[in-house]
Amino acid sequence: MAPTTNIKEAHPMKGGDDPNSYVQNSSYQKGVIDAAKEIIIEAVTQHLDLENNLTTFDPSKPFSIGDFGCSTGPNTYFAMQNIVEVVAEKYKSIKQPKPEFHVFFNDHVNNDFNILFRGIPPNSDYFAAGVPGSFYSRVLPKGSLHLAHCSYALHWLSQVPKEIQDKNSPAYNKGKIHYTGTEKYVVKAYFDQFQRDMDVFLTSRALELVGGGLLIIQMPGLPSGETMFTMTGAGLLHAILGSSLMELAKSVSFFYIISFSSSRSFFFFVMLFFIYHIVECSYVAFRGNFVTFLLIHIIFTQ
Amino acid sequence: MAPTTNIKEAHPMKGGDDPNSYVQNSSYQKGVIDAAKEIIIEAVTQHLDLENNLTTFDPSKPFSIGDFGCSTGPNTYFAMQNIVEVVAEKYKSIKQPKPEFHVFFNDHVNNDFNILFRGIPPNSDYFAAGVPGSFYSRVLPKGSLHLAHCSYALHWLSQVPKEIQDKNSPAYNKGKIHYTGTEKYVVKAYFDQFQRDMDVFLTSRALELVGGGLLIIQMPGLPSGETMFTMTGAGLLHAILGSSLMELAKSVSFFYIISFSSSRSFFFFVMLFFIYHIVECSYVAFRGNFVTFLLIHIIFTQ
Repeated sequence: MAPTTNIKEAHPMKGGDDPNSYVQNSSYQKGVIDAAKEIIIEAVTQHLDLENNLTTFDPSKPFSIGDFGCSTGPNTYFAMQNIVEVVAEKYKSIKQPKPEFHVFFNDHVNNDFNILFRGIPPNSDYFAAGVPGSFYSRVLPKGSLHLAHCSYALHWLSQVPKEIQDKNSPAYNKGKIHYTGTEKYVVKAYFDQFQRDMDVFLTSRALELVGGGLLIIQMPGLPSGETMFTMTGAGLLHAILGSSLMELAKSVSFFYIISFSSSRSFFFFVMLFFIYHIVECSYVAFRGNFVTFLLIHIIFTQ
Repeated sequence: MAPTTNIKEAHPMKGGDDPNSYVQNSSYQKGVIDAAKEIIIEAVTQHLDLENNLTTFDPSKPFSIGDFGCSTGPNTYFAMQNIVEVVAEKYKSIKQPKPEFHVFFNDHVNNDFNILFRGIPPNSDYFAAGVPGSFYSRVLPKGSLHLAHCSYALHWLSQVPKEIQDKNSPAYNKGKIHYTGTEKYVVKAYFDQFQRDMDVFLTSRALELVGGGLLIIQMPGLPSGETMFTMTGAGLLHAILGSSLMELAKSVSFFYIISFSSSRSFFFFVMLFFIYHIVECSYVAFRGNFVTFLLIHIIFTQ
């Protein structure tokens, strides 16, 4: 149960706070969080049923929130503060006192937690804790979380699919580090890896969350059958910069790009219906790309 | 409630893992943890009353342990593993399943948590979280902890007492960075600071611990009236190296030494008897010094 180090390719965002760091280069991801704010307010207001679950959501005990794939800040601070505020408002609306909030910031064990901790805004209305380890594993005890959040992180797979690196496989991707969406076997290899990873992610979060808890995911996605990846901003970027990225991938070993999976990927959730109920799955066009908002209600935990 | 940054002098142990780091220079502190092992086993076995408090210590919920002033490892790993094992044994002895353990590693926000996280042994039987912030403040939500541990950290005060730096005060310490125990006003200035700090420490931990929880402290100390500080190993070291340390303190601003307070310091605990019950206060001679073991039972929390 120590931080998982057996994830084959763990590439946290660039630490520190210099001009090349994630801290200084994540305004796009901040935009996603801003775009999500209203949706999260609505999700918590409508689906977090505090009133009928005051044993689980007892305001005299901490309300715990996890941010999975938080990186080094500052985006995670905005996301967590937004959630704290809307949950506090929800308690107020049912005339209950505000609980103390406990925020668990999760990312790879090699994430720069020092920078993350030093950047937490002084006026934050929560107790902070860092949780090292891949979110493709259990990182928190059973039933220790009331709300889980994951923004723009789940498109990073746990590893590059083996088949696309195998010259004898029909899924061989000719050394490329992304796909455009037209190569059937390559797409399937990525999709299969995504499915395996999501299965681990969802099973882990289901155990960590309390019954009645919420899981809110924002990730890149495409409306089913309407839009090709190559038509999005990111797709165009990959097409134009593809060969340069490949050069970088050769010379800088920690750099790699995993392409998006379409919303159809989520069909396998049905297999897990006894744990999950997908409340909402919507898309928002954002700066030439599409962002998927996924709200999952934990019906009960094992 | 963000990590406290208003502690006037926060000097975490030296980070990294090079030859000058705390990781490579803390075998004395490891000795204290080894010496404490049997006492902790006895304390948990005798005083952690799981059987009559199975709501508070419900094995289907996480059992949370905090290490306050954990530094960068490796000593904290040994201490936490020892505690996890003895608590698991205690559950077994009353024929209850083993709970999942949640360990909160606490130290200053500038502590090197990156090194700490990367060093957690792969076979650790707990989920790990880092908690940034001075232990002279609240760092965890109310009632979120079952057992708190603090080893060889509480002799570091939150600040150098003002009076000893004031040339017009009878407690002026003539620029010295330690005391030998003979200067009445200097000793009182340190003692008063220690008392204020301990008051904050104990009040904070009392709120963070559940009713029935345990607080285990190991710190340097002296048997009342029997031994002068100057007769201990550390006292001799200060006497011999005093002027050199003073030079270092002038040129290296993060370096300072706070001397020990004697066991008599604890009289003020009595004022807090409505929260605490001091179960045990004992001394062990260890490598020419004395280590105080203090076991505090949280009767109830506010």
